[in-house]
Amino acid sequence: MIDKKHIAAIGALAGPKGATTDPDIIAPHLVEWRDKYRGQTQLMVMPDKTETLADIVKYCNAHKIAIVPQGGNTGLVGGSLPGLGKCSEILVSLKRMNTVLSVDATDFSVVAEAGTPILDVQKAAQGHDRLFPLSLASEGSCTVGGTISTNAGGVHVGRYGSMRALTLGIEAVLPDGSIFNDLSPLRKNNTGYDLKQLLIGGEGTLGIITKATLKLVPAEVQTHTCWLAVDSPASALNLLSDARAKTGDRVSVIELIPDAGLKLVLKHIAGARNPLSSDSPWYALLEVASSSSDPALSDTVGTMLENWLFKGMITDGAIAQNEIQAKAMWGLRENMSAAQKHEGPSIKHDIAVPVASVPKFLDIAEETINAQYPGVKIIGFGHLGDGNIHYDIMPPAHEQPEDFMAKWESINRFVHDIVNTFEGSISAEHGIGSMKASDLAHYKDPTSLAMMHTIKKVLDPNKIMNPNCLFLNK
Amino acid sequence: MIDKKHIAAIGALAGPKGATTDPDIIAPHLVEWRDKYRGQTQLMVMPDKTETLADIVKYCNAHKIAIVPQGGNTGLVGGSLPGLGKCSEILVSLKRMNTVLSVDATDFSVVAEAGTPILDVQKAAQGHDRLFPLSLASEGSCTVGGTISTNAGGVHVGRYGSMRALTLGIEAVLPDGSIFNDLSPLRKNNTGYDLKQLLIGGEGTLGIITKATLKLVPAEVQTHTCWLAVDSPASALNLLSDARAKTGDRVSVIELIPDAGLKLVLKHIAGARNPLSSDSPWYALLEVASSSSDPALSDTVGTMLENWLFKGMITDGAIAQNEIQAKAMWGLRENMSAAQKHEGPSIKHDIAVPVASVPKFLDIAEETINAQYPGVKIIGFGHLGDGNIHYDIMPPAHEQPEDFMAKWESINRFVHDIVNTFEGSISAEHGIGSMKASDLAHYKDPTSLAMMHTIKKVLDPNKIMNPNCLFLNK
Repeated sequence: MIDKKHIAAIGALAGPKGATTDPDIIAPHLVEWRDKYRGQTQLMVMPDKTETLADIVKYCNAHKIAIVPQGGNTGLVGGSLPGLGKCSEILVSLKRMNTVLSVDATDFSVVAEAGTPILDVQKAAQGHDRLFPLSLASEGSCTVGGTISTNAGGVHVGRYGSMRALTLGIEAVLPDGSIFNDLSPLRKNNTGYDLKQLLIGGEGTLGIITKATLKLVPAEVQTHTCWLAVDSPASALNLLSDARAKTGDRVSVIELIPDAGLKLVLKHIAGARNPLSSDSPWYALLEVASSSSDPALSDTVGTMLENWLFKGMITDGAIAQNEIQAKAMWGLRENMSAAQKHEGPSIKHDIAVPVASVPKFLDIAEETINAQYPGVKIIGFGHLGDGNIHYDIMPPAHEQPEDFMAKWESINRFVHDIVNTFEGSISAEHGIGSMKASDLAHYKDPTSLAMMHTIKKVLDPNKIMNPNCLFLNK
Repeated sequence: MIDKKHIAAIGALAGPKGATTDPDIIAPHLVEWRDKYRGQTQLMVMPDKTETLADIVKYCNAHKIAIVPQGGNTGLVGGSLPGLGKCSEILVSLKRMNTVLSVDATDFSVVAEAGTPILDVQKAAQGHDRLFPLSLASEGSCTVGGTISTNAGGVHVGRYGSMRALTLGIEAVLPDGSIFNDLSPLRKNNTGYDLKQLLIGGEGTLGIITKATLKLVPAEVQTHTCWLAVDSPASALNLLSDARAKTGDRVSVIELIPDAGLKLVLKHIAGARNPLSSDSPWYALLEVASSSSDPALSDTVGTMLENWLFKGMITDGAIAQNEIQAKAMWGLRENMSAAQKHEGPSIKHDIAVPVASVPKFLDIAEETINAQYPGVKIIGFGHLGDGNIHYDIMPPAHEQPEDFMAKWESINRFVHDIVNTFEGSISAEHGIGSMKASDLAHYKDPTSLAMMHTIKKVLDPNKIMNPNCLFLNK
């Protein structure tokens, strides 16, 4: 418990609209949408400017009061909820710092406060004929600060990179309350350590991001969406290589879908239909997009598909003729998780392997898992372009779903062990949070883990910044 | 002086071919090509594998013997020479670790040892229909480890980013001799702090890079080089914005050249000629390149130039019709420094400002410098696409060149003060080394500087890693 005098003092620093102890107001900030965690806190502060937050952090550091920062609260790993560990944290919501401060079309950059939803950044960019290329399901809610802190990715990582690649500058409040100011949109700057890189993907354990300068690209004016039947993930990878070359590196998406996954969507999702007339063991959703209005790209894509058919690189394929068809193709991919739910629960993994290793990983993982857990149904699908596979395992017919789901941890460990042999990642997209802190301790290279501990200890000696996140808070 | 018993012990760890005390062999490693510094050392080690280097570093750390790592020794800021400061360092040359270990075309990645010249990486990529897009004048000599440690850029930064953007994984020996292993080519990985980012641009002060996994892109199969006459840098920037949009973001180069600079090239460089028939205050060298063989791109570029002429965005322009013409255009840009030398010495700056600020910076800098130093001749040229301007100031006619050159430090400070008001960089490309350590202490945001010191101190407590570099080694 935090002493009441501290609660009052922090509230006073935050100002009348900047703090609340009202449980009803705080409640929605204490649960994630998967409802896997329930947080608790005595106080939520909502600073409206960096200096106010700096004063609050300075006070907290002086009195060793821990803080959990929160953006859109769209995380899935218990990284943005206070009260999950042993200590009492106050919650810092960035929701009042939600303004796009400037868009510079010539500079291809935008400056926004940390609590700005990604959708607002996208819209601001659109207004200047620019694209902010981060695209993910939660973009209406997730924020600039949250996506930087978790180095969020989405469906365009293969082409545009994740938030690390899209972040030019950062302003943040450090654990001692000092303000880190590196907001300049400089493209070339070699003046010492690039310290903002520690805050990117730092999950709020080294500071609270307050503003960021993000990179824009020219607005896309044409998109070609294709649904392709392939005999294997390896064939899909060959398409990616060829398409990158043939289109002048304008592949913006390639997603891999197994037939079993498609069948579930066709079975459970109203209106879903296979764009092709016959079945195939695997499918690829390929999208080529360009800022150029040049009609030749359409021909290039058409010729490329004909060539793939001729060479047997695909067995069938369709190009969306309009936005409705493109959306229907996307619907097949996006409803994979929803369709699975109709069949019952599944044990999920947010993993990545090197792009070229995806086919071998899928083969070996399936074989190994089937040997250990006979009868399970595996649906591996997702971002082929960056190696990030959503890997879901459904119970065997003979097993009660509850019994199977009780094996979550052991099956996770089993799958992660396989991922590890491929130099893969046990958290490609969602981060570590509090959920995977023990996995990180288990899998991370000991030298790196020791270095992480050293840096955390020296930059946040009082352990006030998101103490239950990333590290096992013993 | 390092005790002889240590020299012998380190030599023994390095093995018979791995160490030398012969001054003649060491000599070329002790001078930079601008001949601004002369280093000295008692011992040069040349490990042929990571484990050997790790043993050497472990020994050095135990006995507080300092180390300067060196790649191709193409640096310009005294960052790769031992013996420039107060302490005696041994020299670690990576030149025996110079092998491209693997190229994975499907993964669009290459793994190479730290001492591998960038040209060898480029060639290895070419052999697999891939491009390693880092391109800079010293590419025949500069190495993988050196370019990562200095976050080198070159002419393609606007499109492909600098080495930070091109580095997927790193293996390094840390100051305590432990081996940091993060070589996986993963594109998505959110498992704690991305520690390799500290080594990238760390100038060898936090560890010695031994191997790296680098990013490739599809090989370019067509390039369109244009020489364009514009009335101002602002007009050149407008071309960049429009060209990025119109070509589907395939602008690979845009360089800015002032008429005064071109005139010097035409005067002093044999065979140089203006591709256009009349003069213009400014020129832009624009290059559009693509991995697609689609002939439509040629039409797109042609139409774009016609449109720019029609709208008055350029006053004249030429597209190279063959490689000879393209090389001639590049020659005008590349001979800017050489041509200047014929006129006598100049005071140079390696600076950057935000891309959109280049025109205003050039205006204000010229006005301010002329007021303070009447009669100087300013040549500002370079990488418009990333804001990195080579800013050279030549003496006024009434002043002896030696007298003018004696003002190097004060004029540097004067120019950097202007750069600073634009949130610019005092070292865009070459890094800090020992040359600019005092400038860094002066200009760097105090919060960032303190954080740098904290990290250096905790990761290299015995100050053995390149101690004269980045920091003022008092």
